[in-house]
Amino acid sequence: MNALEQKIVTEGNVLSESVIKVDSFLNHQIDPLLMKQIGQEFTDRFSDTNITKVLTLESSGIAPAIMTGLVLGVPVVFAKKRKPITLADHFSTEVYSFTKKEMNNITISKDFLSPDDNILLIDDFLANGQAVSGMVDIVKQAGANLAGVGIVIEKGFQHGGKILRQDGIRVESLAIISSMENNKITFDKEGALT
Amino acid sequence: MNALEQKIVTEGNVLSESVIKVDSFLNHQIDPLLMKQIGQEFTDRFSDTNITKVLTLESSGIAPAIMTGLVLGVPVVFAKKRKPITLADHFSTEVYSFTKKEMNNITISKDFLSPDDNILLIDDFLANGQAVSGMVDIVKQAGANLAGVGIVIEKGFQHGGKILRQDGIRVESLAIISSMENNKITFDKEGALT
Repeated sequence: MNALEQKIVTEGNVLSESVIKVDSFLNHQIDPLLMKQIGQEFTDRFSDTNITKVLTLESSGIAPAIMTGLVLGVPVVFAKKRKPITLADHFSTEVYSFTKKEMNNITISKDFLSPDDNILLIDDFLANGQAVSGMVDIVKQAGANLAGVGIVIEKGFQHGGKILRQDGIRVESLAIISSMENNKITFDKEGALT
Repeated sequence: MNALEQKIVTEGNVLSESVIKVDSFLNHQIDPLLMKQIGQEFTDRFSDTNITKVLTLESSGIAPAIMTGLVLGVPVVFAKKRKPITLADHFSTEVYSFTKKEMNNITISKDFLSPDDNILLIDDFLANGQAVSGMVDIVKQAGANLAGVGIVIEKGFQHGGKILRQDGIRVESLAIISSMENNKITFDKEGALT
């Protein structure tokens, strides 16, 4: 079991067969050293491609994204869930949140994505894939290239990862939870943050 | 002029005598290497106190806070502007946003702040001081000690910093803008990110 899986088992709080809270190190309290390891791992996994920019969505994606940007030495852009008053010309798309049961309009200024960019998308969770699909849509709007998607925790029992991979998108998840039935967390072998 | 001030002058976009956009390296696109420098500087400035936890507010505070937590080797907690569905017992307080002209209820789970904590508050901007005062209130609710406040950019011509310092709170700002009149940015000498 890798360090991330260990943390999920030790500190994760399974609320139902489909909901896990990892508030102690990822979504509310953040473990910066683990985030640095995660940034290093994403960098290693995508070392065959020349990433120019890391893209994520506020707020929980920012910590793993900024550490990936730090290791890669490239800027990080985070999509905003609410259009700021001072945001001028922008790309936007609609993203449905199953957790919050609402539609968010996510936006990114046109200043920070260009057709010359090779984008690595980073997010904390992948479940139904709505947030990632929204960001993929924005990358397409910008005419940038999508190198791939780096996910900290994928819920393998939900369909987001499957859909993205079927669309030919490279998805690298550091921990893939295959089941949380009977309050027991089991992982797919693919996750490999050592 | 220090590296941060240089970046503000080069990339900041003065929209009025009181509003500056620094979207290219702090609030939308983020420069991870500059954030690391900022984290190092906050660590140096508060090296005389034994910080146990860094506290910030989503979303733009997360990047400087996580880098400070990385250098200090302590966890980072970010206050949430909206109460998540799965957040149980929590501290909360109201914060008025002058930029967005709305009241936000910011919350932190009681799991992540305790009377044993020595807290360093980090935020990207200090203007009217509403966000920092809200976080100070939460630190008090938790019975934790407040070591001080680290700010990336203070608008010295607004009253937030003055009020906090008059209350006996240690505020360390890495760049203090004293004026943006006639589209010219001038700094107080106190900012010293070298």
